[in-house]
Amino acid sequence: MGQIKVGVVGGTGYAGVEIIRLLLGHPHAQLTALTSRADAGRRVDEVFPNLRGYLDLTFVAPDAARLHDCDVVFFATPNGTAMHDAPRLLDAGVRVIDLAADFRLQDVAEWSRWYGMAHACPERVPEAVYGLPEINREAIRSARLVANPGCYPTAIILGFLPLLRSGAVEPGRLIADAKSGASGAGRKAAITTLLTEAADNFHAYGVSGHRHLPEIREVLGARLGAPVDLVFVPHLLPMIRGIHATLYAGLRDARIDLQDLYETAYRDEPFVDVMPPGSHPETRSVRGGNLCRIAVSQAPGSDTAVVLSVIDNLVKGAAGQAVQNMNLMFGLREATGLESVSPLP
Amino acid sequence: MGQIKVGVVGGTGYAGVEIIRLLLGHPHAQLTALTSRADAGRRVDEVFPNLRGYLDLTFVAPDAARLHDCDVVFFATPNGTAMHDAPRLLDAGVRVIDLAADFRLQDVAEWSRWYGMAHACPERVPEAVYGLPEINREAIRSARLVANPGCYPTAIILGFLPLLRSGAVEPGRLIADAKSGASGAGRKAAITTLLTEAADNFHAYGVSGHRHLPEIREVLGARLGAPVDLVFVPHLLPMIRGIHATLYAGLRDARIDLQDLYETAYRDEPFVDVMPPGSHPETRSVRGGNLCRIAVSQAPGSDTAVVLSVIDNLVKGAAGQAVQNMNLMFGLREATGLESVSPLP
Amino acid sequence: MGQIKVGVVGGTGYAGVEIIRLLLGHPHAQLTALTSRADAGRRVDEVFPNLRGYLDLTFVAPDAARLHDCDVVFFATPNGTAMHDAPRLLDAGVRVIDLAADFRLQDVAEWSRWYGMAHACPERVPEAVYGLPEINREAIRSARLVANPGCYPTAIILGFLPLLRSGAVEPGRLIADAKSGASGAGRKAAITTLLTEAADNFHAYGVSGHRHLPEIREVLGARLGAPVDLVFVPHLLPMIRGIHATLYAGLRDARIDLQDLYETAYRDEPFVDVMPPGSHPETRSVRGGNLCRIAVSQAPGSDTAVVLSVIDNLVKGAAGQAVQNMNLMFGLREATGLESVSPLP
Amino acid sequence: MGQIKVGVVGGTGYAGVEIIRLLLGHPHAQLTALTSRADAGRRVDEVFPNLRGYLDLTFVAPDAARLHDCDVVFFATPNGTAMHDAPRLLDAGVRVIDLAADFRLQDVAEWSRWYGMAHACPERVPEAVYGLPEINREAIRSARLVANPGCYPTAIILGFLPLLRSGAVEPGRLIADAKSGASGAGRKAAITTLLTEAADNFHAYGVSGHRHLPEIREVLGARLGAPVDLVFVPHLLPMIRGIHATLYAGLRDARIDLQDLYETAYRDEPFVDVMPPGSHPETRSVRGGNLCRIAVSQAPGSDTAVVLSVIDNLVKGAAGQAVQNMNLMFGLREATGLESVSPLP
Repeated sequence: MGQIKVGVVGGTGYAGVEIIRLLLGHPHAQLTALTSRADAGRRVDEVFPNLRGYLDLTFVAPDAARLHDCDVVFFATPNGTAMHDAPRLLDAGVRVIDLAADFRLQDVAEWSRWYGMAHACPERVPEAVYGLPEINREAIRSARLVANPGCYPTAIILGFLPLLRSGAVEPGRLIADAKSGASGAGRKAAITTLLTEAADNFHAYGVSGHRHLPEIREVLGARLGAPVDLVFVPHLLPMIRGIHATLYAGLRDARIDLQDLYETAYRDEPFVDVMPPGSHPETRSVRGGNLCRIAVSQAPGSDTAVVLSVIDNLVKGAAGQAVQNMNLMFGLREATGLESVSPLP
Repeated sequence: MGQIKVGVVGGTGYAGVEIIRLLLGHPHAQLTALTSRADAGRRVDEVFPNLRGYLDLTFVAPDAARLHDCDVVFFATPNGTAMHDAPRLLDAGVRVIDLAADFRLQDVAEWSRWYGMAHACPERVPEAVYGLPEINREAIRSARLVANPGCYPTAIILGFLPLLRSGAVEPGRLIADAKSGASGAGRKAAITTLLTEAADNFHAYGVSGHRHLPEIREVLGARLGAPVDLVFVPHLLPMIRGIHATLYAGLRDARIDLQDLYETAYRDEPFVDVMPPGSHPETRSVRGGNLCRIAVSQAPGSDTAVVLSVIDNLVKGAAGQAVQNMNLMFGLREATGLESVSPLP
Repeated sequence: MGQIKVGVVGGTGYAGVEIIRLLLGHPHAQLTALTSRADAGRRVDEVFPNLRGYLDLTFVAPDAARLHDCDVVFFATPNGTAMHDAPRLLDAGVRVIDLAADFRLQDVAEWSRWYGMAHACPERVPEAVYGLPEINREAIRSARLVANPGCYPTAIILGFLPLLRSGAVEPGRLIADAKSGASGAGRKAAITTLLTEAADNFHAYGVSGHRHLPEIREVLGARLGAPVDLVFVPHLLPMIRGIHATLYAGLRDARIDLQDLYETAYRDEPFVDVMPPGSHPETRSVRGGNLCRIAVSQAPGSDTAVVLSVIDNLVKGAAGQAVQNMNLMFGLREATGLESVSPLP
Repeated sequence: MGQIKVGVVGGTGYAGVEIIRLLLGHPHAQLTALTSRADAGRRVDEVFPNLRGYLDLTFVAPDAARLHDCDVVFFATPNGTAMHDAPRLLDAGVRVIDLAADFRLQDVAEWSRWYGMAHACPERVPEAVYGLPEINREAIRSARLVANPGCYPTAIILGFLPLLRSGAVEPGRLIADAKSGASGAGRKAAITTLLTEAADNFHAYGVSGHRHLPEIREVLGARLGAPVDLVFVPHLLPMIRGIHATLYAGLRDARIDLQDLYETAYRDEPFVDVMPPGSHPETRSVRGGNLCRIAVSQAPGSDTAVVLSVIDNLVKGAAGQAVQNMNLMFGLREATGLESVSPLP
């Protein structure tokens, strides 16, 4: 088969450079256009020296016509960009995967409340497919517009799903205590994520409400056909990559075999690894890779299920999942280009 | 008044060197005997170069008679040491503060189950006072044997206490998601806390049961006069110092003023800081200091109280609290020697 | 004696907050005015939560008249600020300690070349005293305007000085390989010092020339009465605080007793610690403290002297040295307020 | 062609697991036997959870006969192991690549002095080929026993080589100021490389002499046909992977075009990247990869050449170089299995 021609809009953020890295190892994709408003005209490997020797490309301005020649365009842009630029590409027959939040919520009014702006193309929202293959694989195959999930939602939804789908827990009393490495804040000048502020330090943030909360609620609720409520507290970890979600849910029946429930649910999933009983998945065990590793147990002397779910926020939580979606959209083997082993240490 | 003569048994661990550091700045305490089995004969500042220029002492063997001349002896030893050596000191009129777990549980059978050994002096356990000044201040003043609390229990008990004492939450459905810096594992050769293993990484541990769980249950239960149960999941943070406990509890009445509840509860406490509404306490804001900083809020759209409680595990979670207890036992102002400001960054 | 009334201009940077921290523990200084252009009107402990409970002050606009009522004003501002604002204060009889570079070079033309701007008050430069007490103690006592040294120059000058003063090495072939924690870059939004960029990473910078190079050359040259040349390569360490300078110089006579040379040179210095032969000073051993710890040795089988010199860049390299200078200027014991022990770990 | 059957002795250290990781992505190598004295009988992915899903192997005892069936055996063992076990394998026709130091020095007496033991098979030393392809490519192709270079020597030799070979500098006044991540100390329980000791800290070590010094001297001296002397000071970086060598050498003629010298020297090397003038190579830009990135410049106003050389100590400094050597020994394309892109951030 021919190569898939790929464009990346906003290639100078962390999700963008991660897409580039993954596609350099992908046998059926060819980077055709990398755009950047700020760095147009600069060589890619000048901005990202880790890429020296691997590609010979220069960033172009984002409005470049060559995006129209792509088979698929990834938007690795801030929220509120793809909703302006994706429609023309879609009209031109280019498929779009948006790594930002623009198409993640079907409830556009709710979206506007959380993101503080009017939606530029609400009429396109219904056709967007939420790009979590573990729940939407078939829809993704034929999607023209994929809303790539948020990083926290990926770890949390995959962690809660078997419990909720099986009816093992009540959907109204879920707790997600989640911790993310600093790359979740992106590659932008800021004081709060300076090494001097974030290293050797730990704190929660967004206790009064985080944008990933409505996303988790909507997606889980849609799968369940019933409202799902959860308490979600994100924290900033003094490290670069990785999300660890620690999930708590009250079991309806404490005699359930949780290990079997999870192993069965994810038996055929290429990127969900249910670990042996008693495991404590480490974020580094998925660093740079597209896996979600999960351990499940029952708290000692309690009817509470405890789920530990880890991903690399930039891979399964962003660029890797986007490539997984691309593979599905173009009829490739789902794991193509996503099989490298996480280095240790 | 004269100087308090202080002995430290096990001075070469992190709690030990932290006691030394704090007492060097204490106007009414004098380090008299520092013992170490492994490092007897070595200068203290050879083992800990940060102390060069501040003291002129050499570690002595732990059985040295000079401990008997002390007014108070801190045991900064592994679990199972103080229960052997403290009785003779107590008999000689020396007051004892044990930073390990030997005297933390009144239920000796429970203690043996969790610590995997028989207790060497169960008859001494009843006189031990649990050294958390915020609940036991008066008893500590007259105590001869103080069981200094564990690090996790300090952060968690102080975080839950106002909720439980006021009856605002049910005592049977508490969740403590706690995260600790690597110094909680002590200064001992080990693979799991090597920089190469613990840096740029994050994971839970002890999901199947952690020794601090019975301690929290017993202490809170005793305060409440009723059984308290909680789910407790500890995690290892890729940093040196600090504990962050994120606590969840179901409110009986969602209209409660949580901020007022906490401010009232801790109004007169020198080492508990209830932060303004919407705060996210950082572990670094208490680094090297004896404060516990707490923020409390209600999860958005939920009847769940969320408490964020941070301490320095080596100070309020160990050595600082021990000095606070010593101050109480010897009639000093409680904050003496514990007033330094945490450096930022 | 009365309290020294202290103003801090630019109190929201790292040097500023460090001055505040140190003066909170200083028995003879009183913070009178803290200014900040960006944060005027905000409580200090809202910007820096580590200070909660220790002071009750609000940042004021930098032009506030109350600076004129101070006995001394610290400028913890970017380069090019003090040269505009200090003259009026000096005229009003207020003494000034500038932590930036404005008055560090006596050669104003050289200053303009390196700092890329014209000097606003070249006529004030001659009266400025370079505030390194180990070489200028007497001049500092009577100074009205002190140029507080740069962080790298402090570690490097103290490291080379005994070698150069004694004539043990040739002044033309010095190498300073220096490494600094990220706080050296200050508290300002930037990409290069994000945790995601600077953690788990290491690199040199400024190989083609760094502003501290002319400072080191001028100060050492003035002490020696002869031109001094050196190669200076700074590096960015993946950590918060600390400078480690590794210095190399060719010995004229390989039979010299370097240990004795250094011990003699610094025998009476309160803040220079010459460590025993074979030592490798750690940056953490001076963290938060005002010490410079130095080890000196001869490279095996070589006539090269190797000097290891460590400081906390924010203390002896900035705020601590500034307080040390203040103590000298006001006739206080030099170490007042600067005697806390560095915590370990 | 058939698969190369590979054995790894000592597979539970960091070099061992890195060989496993690299060979899992190698199209022509098959892991046949992984041995470990301590972990025999345990699944490999139980010891290293990052490998879950990628291989189905169990560690076997090191004396297992199946090593004899391998085409090549990597020794990723402590110093002093391969010299005992390699001879029998060599006699059986198995090729050996030793990642430890046993065969690195041709001067066996010198080896014994530095490593503190008698050599068990001095008669094998002459046939050992020093496995740095950039200097020994042809000899490696036909070697039966390869001594894989040390991590520091790899970065330092590659950095100095063009200067020395061209005669641009005098070989008697070289300075190598080198910094290594903590993984250089291996995966063994120790206090000095605990996160609590090594994080947020920096110091030199081995100033009085490091085992890599005679290795560098011997290898450079052999290439030059003349004695080479250098001052070598290693430092421990607060990070996991990466070596940064900052090299200084006095130029015989300051008008030399250093950039051209290096670009010419390494034009055809697949794993040496000479960066553009003014670059500061970052250790993360080679993380997990086999590249050595080098920048060269002349110190401003000086006749000193400054070379910045970075590698991943576990890849080009250990396992990757070993695989590169294997590729050469078995007639494969040299870069096979070593082409992954370093992730950023």
